[in-house]
Amino acid sequence: MAPLKNRQWLLAARPQGMVKESDFRWHETTVDAPAEGQLLVRNLALSFDPTQRGWMSRDTYVPAVPLGQVMRAGAVAQVVESRLEGFAPGDLVQGVFGWEDYTRTDGRGRFGLRKLAPGTDPLLALSLLGLTGLTAYFGTLEIGRPRPGESFVVSGAAGATGSVAGMIAKLKGCRVVGIAGGQAKCDWLISEAGFDLAIDYKREDVGQALSRHCPDGINVYFDNVGGAILDLALERLAPAARVVLCGAISQYNEPAGPAARPPRNYFYLIWRGARMEGFLVTQFAARFPEALADLSAWHSQGRLKNRIDLQHGLENAPRTLIRLFTGDNFGKQLLKLADPR
Amino acid sequence: MAPLKNRQWLLAARPQGMVKESDFRWHETTVDAPAEGQLLVRNLALSFDPTQRGWMSRDTYVPAVPLGQVMRAGAVAQVVESRLEGFAPGDLVQGVFGWEDYTRTDGRGRFGLRKLAPGTDPLLALSLLGLTGLTAYFGTLEIGRPRPGESFVVSGAAGATGSVAGMIAKLKGCRVVGIAGGQAKCDWLISEAGFDLAIDYKREDVGQALSRHCPDGINVYFDNVGGAILDLALERLAPAARVVLCGAISQYNEPAGPAARPPRNYFYLIWRGARMEGFLVTQFAARFPEALADLSAWHSQGRLKNRIDLQHGLENAPRTLIRLFTGDNFGKQLLKLADPR
Repeated sequence: MAPLKNRQWLLAARPQGMVKESDFRWHETTVDAPAEGQLLVRNLALSFDPTQRGWMSRDTYVPAVPLGQVMRAGAVAQVVESRLEGFAPGDLVQGVFGWEDYTRTDGRGRFGLRKLAPGTDPLLALSLLGLTGLTAYFGTLEIGRPRPGESFVVSGAAGATGSVAGMIAKLKGCRVVGIAGGQAKCDWLISEAGFDLAIDYKREDVGQALSRHCPDGINVYFDNVGGAILDLALERLAPAARVVLCGAISQYNEPAGPAARPPRNYFYLIWRGARMEGFLVTQFAARFPEALADLSAWHSQGRLKNRIDLQHGLENAPRTLIRLFTGDNFGKQLLKLADPR
Repeated sequence: MAPLKNRQWLLAARPQGMVKESDFRWHETTVDAPAEGQLLVRNLALSFDPTQRGWMSRDTYVPAVPLGQVMRAGAVAQVVESRLEGFAPGDLVQGVFGWEDYTRTDGRGRFGLRKLAPGTDPLLALSLLGLTGLTAYFGTLEIGRPRPGESFVVSGAAGATGSVAGMIAKLKGCRVVGIAGGQAKCDWLISEAGFDLAIDYKREDVGQALSRHCPDGINVYFDNVGGAILDLALERLAPAARVVLCGAISQYNEPAGPAARPPRNYFYLIWRGARMEGFLVTQFAARFPEALADLSAWHSQGRLKNRIDLQHGLENAPRTLIRLFTGDNFGKQLLKLADPR
């Protein structure tokens, strides 16, 4: 087989402040055949996640993407050639690959490699039935532990994780309040996602609205944004409240990252006997099958909506990532590269 | 009975920065007989606790002490006259009273009133077998949940709560590292309190020492000091670590309180799948009897040392409080006013 042409986006610079298209460099090359123990896969769809901003800047829970290397991304791909036992051409696989047409992988490393059932919808596998849905599932149920009748507040509520977190809390009998930016998102939270209340942070005083909507305090706060809104929530925690630390998208483009605006009101954790807990979804890997069974069942029953914000074409990868940080995305941000064969 | 002369320290000003003697005003008055449902008690010994700095400044988990009123303090006292059922003259009682010779109380309110067995040592009841020991007990066992072989780090380690927390963790089989100020305190931690290692924050680079003493990360960090040391610990958490928020004495004299220097490294809670949890010891009130039984047994067996820093005379109350914030205290800070009759 002649070498395949491979288009790539390389990381050209550690971003200063807001991520820019010029932080990436377009590169055209060819891809070699897989070595023993490797797969050659064609990327079908790419996932865009706030955590990628950290991968561009610094070592965190994983090493930073090296400068000059392909930008790292969650993806669903199709096996082109296999020298890895258990995989055959045509298989659909999910893993952390990159912004490129083709990737060679041995499936090792923190994120592993998952074979998908034939016919799996790549977009669903990268959203509700992938790490995004799993993050919402374990963050809500294992870290937040909501109980019926409790007030559950989620920020970034129209985002991929936040919307699912709120819908799961609703399934568990909570009064669910979402914080999102703009009327369209807030309307969708109420009419489609079934939230009880929505706060438009672009238009409303979030602190006053939280006090009004949660007069007895917040029992669970699921945080996707960090910064000032985290502080407003901490100040309004109910006794024995749980703060689920999932992300801090408002801070990722600060030079110091989330350290730029730490939670000034952390002492409310003492005054309210409350808990703030972080997690990486991979710590629950052993329980992914049961979680995916639940998510899949709730989705088929229409109790969980899966909203996808789909862009097209590898050339648009940087612009698609930027949508996450401008708040332009509405639902899970994905980029489609190709259809399965 | 002729009215008794009552000497008092009133709160004269909300402190600006470091608490000063001039934030209090000496006042001499008389005390009336108790009304129906009240006790008149004579204060025998006063407890000095970092949380009193908050009481002076602002509403927190309890309202601030009103200006012009007696400074609030934990105390052991003896009943002089009782119009409250179940109490008789001569009974020893423990509660939150004030910086004065005599207090009238109905025993209600957040802190309640506890009758002590005849012959109880007031100093022991205000230290290891009081709220201080209980705070260390529940903070360590219920919030920190140390397991044998884990690395347990405690700041303010030569203080009343920190020393007991470390000793309890040691009883539970942890490797215990204490952070304290000065050679004398560090020596005591090793030779008397049985800690494995001590870090002198006045002389050592705390971050480097923590990295050296906990090469696999910190499993439990019991925080009494807040500020920069909290950040150094967060940066070194092991996966699934627990941070016990007990206090932030390094910050209490800042104009903004603990909000002045919030934990910049809170994102390590995500990267390490870790938990930071606060508590008020009163939330465990129903379990005080079992805890006191444990603390008392461990103390009799010589497995818990009770170090007291005892000052004398009501006139020294402001100076005694200041000792907590200069780090001059060594062990539980108490002030003796009188012997039981």
